[in-house]
Amino acid sequence: MSDCEPPSARTRIRRIPTNAHYDAATVHAIVDDAYVCQVAFADDAGDVHCIPTACWRDGEHLVIHGSNGSRLIKRLAGGAQACVTITHVDGLVLARSAFSHSMNYRSVVVYGQFERVADADKPALLDRFMDHIAPGRRHEARAADANELAATTLLKLPLREAAAKIRRGGPTDDEADLALPVWAGVVPIARVFGEPVADAGVAGDVTAYVRGLVTGS
Amino acid sequence: MSDCEPPSARTRIRRIPTNAHYDAATVHAIVDDAYVCQVAFADDAGDVHCIPTACWRDGEHLVIHGSNGSRLIKRLAGGAQACVTITHVDGLVLARSAFSHSMNYRSVVVYGQFERVADADKPALLDRFMDHIAPGRRHEARAADANELAATTLLKLPLREAAAKIRRGGPTDDEADLALPVWAGVVPIARVFGEPVADAGVAGDVTAYVRGLVTGS
Repeated sequence: MSDCEPPSARTRIRRIPTNAHYDAATVHAIVDDAYVCQVAFADDAGDVHCIPTACWRDGEHLVIHGSNGSRLIKRLAGGAQACVTITHVDGLVLARSAFSHSMNYRSVVVYGQFERVADADKPALLDRFMDHIAPGRRHEARAADANELAATTLLKLPLREAAAKIRRGGPTDDEADLALPVWAGVVPIARVFGEPVADAGVAGDVTAYVRGLVTGS
Repeated sequence: MSDCEPPSARTRIRRIPTNAHYDAATVHAIVDDAYVCQVAFADDAGDVHCIPTACWRDGEHLVIHGSNGSRLIKRLAGGAQACVTITHVDGLVLARSAFSHSMNYRSVVVYGQFERVADADKPALLDRFMDHIAPGRRHEARAADANELAATTLLKLPLREAAAKIRRGGPTDDEADLALPVWAGVVPIARVFGEPVADAGVAGDVTAYVRGLVTGS
């Protein structure tokens, strides 16, 4: 994927196209920073649904999972056209004029059809999910048994037909507004991990890799 | 809206229905905590799109805005059926078994058709938007002039056909896994505001209400 050209007509960003990115590295980084995505699709009656679900990345694919019986999973596994969106809000952009207010953000919109992950590939992909949530944990938690694996469907979507949009930086006020005596700038927004809360009956200290999430180490 | 019964067939939550909420107070609180929503809709060709955009609440409605020329705005103002989703991730739920891992979250899915906000109502609704972003700021920033107002379309969606889903609390491991020597619990996730970054040329201290965002006061 080029950084300048969209992979398809429907991924072309027209509003503020200078904020558009179509390269894999940018798309991947936004996916990697997400725990959930929103999956939009139409049902047989033509109703559009948009359902949040956990997600992670495996190479060139976005992966989701669910119970075999879930309507979302059944519909997507059946080949429905999907549009998946991830949005991170990174800051409030306070301009001198109300009209020029904005937000800093990173978003990605991916079009395509999910395909079912083969049973043989499920364990490795679920390990990747665990690594995404808490690196190190998959060596500690009890791995899924045969029944649990059989009850879970994994679906993957190529990250090929994707468009990212990113806004960074301060406000862009009109020249005429620059002298107004108004505080203007950015209030950054960040996601932070709080102190881990042990489940009832858990003995011992918080595992090092969990502590690492909190301290960012 | 009742807390127990969905407002329509398509809002009925079937996966873990004990996490479902259909009452207005729950739906409103999730909307009020959001800066952006994802808006899904189909175009004439049947392609489904899911576009992130800023949102706020005015009473019983979710409100979005955009340039008159935006495809999203034009399509929605034309009466397209929409599905709007907001998701807040509140924690990573680390269970003793891989299968029982989960996330704590609050989400809302709203179905319906947007309607155009009358010109006369725009200024008050934009004030509400400003209050949502930074309470107090609308008395300081330059208000939108006639041209800016005319260039902006506001759309509102009733929060009537809505379903919220909330997961809170610790892991729910199988009985057989409870004795495993694995740290289990929740790593909370929170959104925090960082130190405000003044734009070039801004003199004076950060305004009190901006400072209040950061300190939570």
